[in-house]
Amino acid sequence: MSDDGNRADRDATRSAAPVEAAGVGAPRRRTRPGPQQAIDPLPSWNDVPSRQAIVDFVSRVTDHRGSDFVPPAERIATFDNDGTLWCEVPMYAQAAFLVDRIRALAPDHPDWTRTEPFRSLLVGDVDAVAAAGVHGIASLVAATHAGMTTDTFAETARNWLATATNPVFGRRYADCTYQPMLEVMAYLRKNAFKTFIVSGGGADFLRVFAESTYGVPPEQVVGSAGKVRFEPRDGEPVLIKLPELDLLDDGPGKPVGIHRAIGRRPIMAFGNSDGDLEMLRWATTGRRPHFAALVHHTDASREAAYDRESRVGKLDEALTAAATHGWTIVDMERDWAKIFPAL
Amino acid sequence: MSDDGNRADRDATRSAAPVEAAGVGAPRRRTRPGPQQAIDPLPSWNDVPSRQAIVDFVSRVTDHRGSDFVPPAERIATFDNDGTLWCEVPMYAQAAFLVDRIRALAPDHPDWTRTEPFRSLLVGDVDAVAAAGVHGIASLVAATHAGMTTDTFAETARNWLATATNPVFGRRYADCTYQPMLEVMAYLRKNAFKTFIVSGGGADFLRVFAESTYGVPPEQVVGSAGKVRFEPRDGEPVLIKLPELDLLDDGPGKPVGIHRAIGRRPIMAFGNSDGDLEMLRWATTGRRPHFAALVHHTDASREAAYDRESRVGKLDEALTAAATHGWTIVDMERDWAKIFPAL
Repeated sequence: MSDDGNRADRDATRSAAPVEAAGVGAPRRRTRPGPQQAIDPLPSWNDVPSRQAIVDFVSRVTDHRGSDFVPPAERIATFDNDGTLWCEVPMYAQAAFLVDRIRALAPDHPDWTRTEPFRSLLVGDVDAVAAAGVHGIASLVAATHAGMTTDTFAETARNWLATATNPVFGRRYADCTYQPMLEVMAYLRKNAFKTFIVSGGGADFLRVFAESTYGVPPEQVVGSAGKVRFEPRDGEPVLIKLPELDLLDDGPGKPVGIHRAIGRRPIMAFGNSDGDLEMLRWATTGRRPHFAALVHHTDASREAAYDRESRVGKLDEALTAAATHGWTIVDMERDWAKIFPAL
Repeated sequence: MSDDGNRADRDATRSAAPVEAAGVGAPRRRTRPGPQQAIDPLPSWNDVPSRQAIVDFVSRVTDHRGSDFVPPAERIATFDNDGTLWCEVPMYAQAAFLVDRIRALAPDHPDWTRTEPFRSLLVGDVDAVAAAGVHGIASLVAATHAGMTTDTFAETARNWLATATNPVFGRRYADCTYQPMLEVMAYLRKNAFKTFIVSGGGADFLRVFAESTYGVPPEQVVGSAGKVRFEPRDGEPVLIKLPELDLLDDGPGKPVGIHRAIGRRPIMAFGNSDGDLEMLRWATTGRRPHFAALVHHTDASREAAYDRESRVGKLDEALTAAATHGWTIVDMERDWAKIFPAL
């Protein structure tokens, strides 16, 4: 007996928290098929083609009598994080974390007031932060946290996330997740999918909140990462963060990160920007049935509207590729009845 | 039924609640308790202290009323592969694969007949292969497979494993696993542990057989790895293996690999050599209850006897550390009623 059965059940259990918080699935699924099917698994979605495409795909690959059946072990779904599972405006949450960290560490680094990009970050120049991009942020996080143990870094990030607030929405960052996407993740897990986050953001940062926020355990988080070194410190072994980047899990780095961490090709992938193009290409060229979707930020009133010209979450090449390859477009304004979870 | 069976009964009873709490096997619960508890989970183990230590630990961490209870999500167990889960004499299976690959590729590389270590490998110099060690083998595999796609490599390894035979035992390599360790893995999974392989061997090689042989899916395999590059080839995206090593998952590289892939500390770790020392240190210095064991190769008649002076699977420093830290020693000759699975 492989892990599969256990895994699916454990995933479903973990997902209970976010789903219940949203008022969905509170009636326990102890009683099976009938009642479960009677509950709408995607209540925050309007009755739209994107919703139908997701449900149709899941139905096809879980129908063990059909020719598109995919065994549970191969039901791997990967999700980008920033802009796909949670809000990335006005800047990536990890960029905001970086700004706050650099401010906190600045007294020990007087040279930063004269050195770019630290100077711009210290004065809160949002354009400079945005210009740094995924690579710049990943490198800066690595540089500014070099010498710290992984445990201390996790504690620092956890403390920051407990209080830091998105300035546009006035919610803690972990409350700026997209309710419809939380529902998709839970729905997939109920159908024996294993859900992974594959993000340009830092794995060590993501792992602090992915389990409580998304029901995704640390071992299912793939992200950018700095190198670490094992060493004894005061007689106890620790892992020390080094300044060098180990993996930039963005663009062509995403299939690389997927291969490294997961070792098999996803059959579903969700993204929202050009940084997800290669992941979606990789997921949709395997021999199994496959599905890809792009979350399109079209809702200026409830969230934000941006695509081909945006500095954050630019969606240009991937939007063109979606038309070519028949990927599903999720139009946030049209498709989602609700954006954020109820507080 | 022996004392063993009675003890297993009590343990199964104690562990039942947390397993259900985790949602594991909930739908199947109805049919069980009785029969399941009556089955000895470790039938190939003699009634010895190492067996008792494993069962006691699992009972403690799954007793949700006890102070040592560990939530299912944190029940991570890591297993070295060569010498811990399967046989590593007369040489690592992957070294044998490498020798065969180099022979197959030699016609295209006439210079290999004059270049070390290729020359020694081509003439089947076992000492030279052993001397290459984990690092040498990982580097050579990377070097000899550069330019190949990950899919082609997997196919090559799969074909090799389907027929290649361990020359000492006359069994295919995948049949040279240790039956008592297969039972430990299954027993842990029944108790809601997630089992990972953390090996100095190549992840891409291990993933070809880990699922069918051990019930460990690719995403729970951590191993040494070469770098890969994403690129389009004939219009389809592929991952190309590059000659550079990305991670040497051995010694201090094991906690690094664990952090990178799992992102949290194991509470159980099993190894057999000095290459596992740092993994066992890492697993046994967390805040949770923890357990570490070394498989000691003491059985010259049924398998092999080696430790402090061995070229393959040297167990010297780690054996000393085991005494210091109170790690469990599994004496293969004394503790295991059976070595290999029935064919």
